[in-house]
Amino acid sequence: MSADPDNPFSPALPGAPVIYDSTLRDGAQALGITFSQAGKIRFAHLLDQFGIPYIEGGYAGSNERDMQFFRDAEKEHFEQIRIVAFGSTRRVGSKAAEDSGLQALLRAGTSSVAIYGKASRLHVREVLRTTDAENLDMISESVAFLREHGLEVHFDAEHFFDGYREDPAYALEVLRRAAEAGAASLVFCDTNGGTLPRTLSTIVARVHETFPEMLLGIHPHNDSGMGVANAIEGYLSGARMIQGCFNGYGERTGNANLTTIIPTLQLKLGATVTTPEKLTTLRTLSRAVDDLVNQSPDPRAPYVGEAAFAHKAGAHVSGIRHCPASFEHCPPEAVGNQRKVLLSELSGASNVLYRLKQAGSEFNPDALSKDEVRHIVTSLKDREAAGYSFESADASFQILVQKALGAHKPFFELDSFRVTIERRGTDSQCLSEATVKLRVNGQTQLSVGEGVGPVDALDSALRTALTKFYPEIADIKLTDFRVRILDPKEAVNATTRVLIESTDGATRWSTVGVSPNIIEASWQAILDSIEYKLLPRANDAQAAPSAPSAQPEG
Amino acid sequence: MSADPDNPFSPALPGAPVIYDSTLRDGAQALGITFSQAGKIRFAHLLDQFGIPYIEGGYAGSNERDMQFFRDAEKEHFEQIRIVAFGSTRRVGSKAAEDSGLQALLRAGTSSVAIYGKASRLHVREVLRTTDAENLDMISESVAFLREHGLEVHFDAEHFFDGYREDPAYALEVLRRAAEAGAASLVFCDTNGGTLPRTLSTIVARVHETFPEMLLGIHPHNDSGMGVANAIEGYLSGARMIQGCFNGYGERTGNANLTTIIPTLQLKLGATVTTPEKLTTLRTLSRAVDDLVNQSPDPRAPYVGEAAFAHKAGAHVSGIRHCPASFEHCPPEAVGNQRKVLLSELSGASNVLYRLKQAGSEFNPDALSKDEVRHIVTSLKDREAAGYSFESADASFQILVQKALGAHKPFFELDSFRVTIERRGTDSQCLSEATVKLRVNGQTQLSVGEGVGPVDALDSALRTALTKFYPEIADIKLTDFRVRILDPKEAVNATTRVLIESTDGATRWSTVGVSPNIIEASWQAILDSIEYKLLPRANDAQAAPSAPSAQPEG
Repeated sequence: MSADPDNPFSPALPGAPVIYDSTLRDGAQALGITFSQAGKIRFAHLLDQFGIPYIEGGYAGSNERDMQFFRDAEKEHFEQIRIVAFGSTRRVGSKAAEDSGLQALLRAGTSSVAIYGKASRLHVREVLRTTDAENLDMISESVAFLREHGLEVHFDAEHFFDGYREDPAYALEVLRRAAEAGAASLVFCDTNGGTLPRTLSTIVARVHETFPEMLLGIHPHNDSGMGVANAIEGYLSGARMIQGCFNGYGERTGNANLTTIIPTLQLKLGATVTTPEKLTTLRTLSRAVDDLVNQSPDPRAPYVGEAAFAHKAGAHVSGIRHCPASFEHCPPEAVGNQRKVLLSELSGASNVLYRLKQAGSEFNPDALSKDEVRHIVTSLKDREAAGYSFESADASFQILVQKALGAHKPFFELDSFRVTIERRGTDSQCLSEATVKLRVNGQTQLSVGEGVGPVDALDSALRTALTKFYPEIADIKLTDFRVRILDPKEAVNATTRVLIESTDGATRWSTVGVSPNIIEASWQAILDSIEYKLLPRANDAQAAPSAPSAQPEG
Repeated sequence: MSADPDNPFSPALPGAPVIYDSTLRDGAQALGITFSQAGKIRFAHLLDQFGIPYIEGGYAGSNERDMQFFRDAEKEHFEQIRIVAFGSTRRVGSKAAEDSGLQALLRAGTSSVAIYGKASRLHVREVLRTTDAENLDMISESVAFLREHGLEVHFDAEHFFDGYREDPAYALEVLRRAAEAGAASLVFCDTNGGTLPRTLSTIVARVHETFPEMLLGIHPHNDSGMGVANAIEGYLSGARMIQGCFNGYGERTGNANLTTIIPTLQLKLGATVTTPEKLTTLRTLSRAVDDLVNQSPDPRAPYVGEAAFAHKAGAHVSGIRHCPASFEHCPPEAVGNQRKVLLSELSGASNVLYRLKQAGSEFNPDALSKDEVRHIVTSLKDREAAGYSFESADASFQILVQKALGAHKPFFELDSFRVTIERRGTDSQCLSEATVKLRVNGQTQLSVGEGVGPVDALDSALRTALTKFYPEIADIKLTDFRVRILDPKEAVNATTRVLIESTDGATRWSTVGVSPNIIEASWQAILDSIEYKLLPRANDAQAAPSAPSAQPEG
């Protein structure tokens, strides 16, 4: 049923949404998206735990890796997720029972398959180069063949909306043949991604009147920026099965983004996709998926992005302190995200104070004098003007506050460092070596380190010099290293910003360094990371370094 | 008028859209978006040339930089664009004539201003902490005051959709007071970005019935992934003025993306925003705007992204060769973009051949044997598995093809290189020095270079060694340098991919290098860049290097 026109603000729903993930198949078509075999299995488990019912595992027969995944997945235990093998109808002029694509679908060994067929006469003529009647036979024979082998069959009507606009009767006939042959669902693909929500919802509603009992599905792409809107409009018009990809991966501009669609369905329309508890893991899930394919998370992603609940403008920030709902479209915790207050040239003292409070800094923001706050804001602005960014570098922010307040006590003094990167001979390996000279407690230390790259070597030399004084440094691991070129048009002279994330097993902290020299920028971020780890000593009676003769305490 | 329900595929339009850009004001609220003063003026000219009628220049009175922009813009000659100064209604309990914010709007000196006021009773109560009546007075008195000073006044109804859902009568009364006081437009802000298209279009259509003669506007945010859809739905329901930001900049998840909205209006709805000729500059405009604020272009951006018309899957690629319209939602040329065929493990020989043809390679793809094509595909796959990416590195791709075909003739042989980065003393500068040893034509060359960073030093040493043999190398400039960490969780051991863009003034080319050592990765990309520049020599009678004694020919 379509939405109640008298109450558009809480529309009637066509029933519980059925989420069908295509990340491993359509998502993997995208530039830069490649899953390892182990990564695919891990992905399936993540979605299973989250409560997704369907996952398209790959294109049966197109390559050995996809077939291997179907075999591997067979051995896994899943709570409820069904793996779907993807393929197409039989080819023009072949027999279903002899078609290599349909055979591959059987060999995939899944209990559920999806096949695509053409719903557009233009495509039948120009791409398939066959008759309208043969295309209809290809669809019904292929669905019937797979049903005879006991499989659940989803039918993807390719270019459905373009086809419907060309010739509604033919597009509906395509669906009818698939339905009569036993398809479990009829899926409307906006293959080119060019359909606008109003057109799409009108067509879905009409088809829904024609096939009131069938499970209908929607498969939008984002070419017109409408991927999510088309998924939601398709659902509200009667297409309960929603196909998309996590994080909006997909060819060209991407598939409809399930990471946005799921919370919209659940938090704004009241539809049940998963439990509220599992929904709070959405942000973690999104990050885990990015990690599986080595993608940097999109900071602007709705709901789960780093910036999704970030506030910069002074008026907004003071509004949020009074009444969070006033400037947030949903509670960040509902999707496992959190509110964030950004520091910037637009921001004044109130933002800095809020941030200090949030960071659990040693300084009580309420006890600071106006002059002290002004010192912090000024040194922050100076650093930001030079290219530093403290939004994701909490530890560097705290060290900056210490320095601005004259409360910073250095744990060591750097004398000099040198890094050498060398390659001898065309095919030999590149070697990196670093030496560091510093003073701790008046005592000079000289140390050397090697590494696969210059930053690694420098990090190693620095730790060697310091660990005997500060044994807790041995616990630090660098877990993330990001490089941003701030003015890429300056090419090799460009200013480089390095962000480093560190952990000691118990907590995580982030630091930043900026310089036209990438080694220098990395060095700054490493120094801040070590200083941050040592901060508890500053407030401690044992502020002084351990005796250099002391054994590291592991 | 709303769209004709009987013809949803070509809806009736409410009139010519009026595009109102807020990039310099709302866009600049975003993380990382900062315009220089010269950049703002340049931005205004770019939009003026493109045919945009309104641009919001900043928040009057919030900082000196925004006020300076209004003064600077005054001196510029624009074709048609109007600069709008932004502010708010008078404060609670103040008099309009004495309100500092309204005074700042007068001082801005623009002929057009926009002020926001509250349309939600919740916000009046919780954020303003005043009465419903006082809020209405604030609105009408502020609009009237600015009108008395001869200004065109746009009224932004903040939180309009939330306010309408709470209390439609009050939200409409807010609009009525602004209209009666002389507002030129009534703009519906979806301030939190949480409104869905169906709700939004229903409300806009109702308001349009109430104010059939007023210019209505829509100001959506993208928090639910609906920014573009809400702009288009708002327009189709009667809001002719569309507010958004170029490239979707803006606080949190961004404002509605004008770079997507404009071609959707013009190419899909037949509305006129600019001339078809100017629309073909959209991609260049989008890049120019990214450059002004040092943002990396989003490859997945609809219409203008690098990947927006990129095809990877074999079936799609062969479909496109037959019939481009079959797999593209609009002609890429209409927005100044182009079709692109990606190389990947999913792609086979046909993609590689298409790419070779497109790249204007020296090798005629049709003349290659099956074995030769297989060699290319294999070495491509090997490189891609190691982390190389040739999608944006055409020059490296051509060198790879040469090598795979055994047709590569090296112009020099590298013996060794060494880079030293050194800092002595805490506050002294970091120095980088590189030495390079190589052989050209049997002759050994040893050279040294300095630079602000290690890559700069290496580049300088290499050119010094080679320029006397190949004088054309002096023409090469590195114009872009990008670093991508492929497995950031490996921290300092992470694999690094470096992309370099070079130019010799006449053409541009891109190269790639990959290594756990960033210096080594940069080195590979620089070597490929120089080799590519020298390629014409390989097919030349003067393939041999110039005599080392020859004078560089500049």
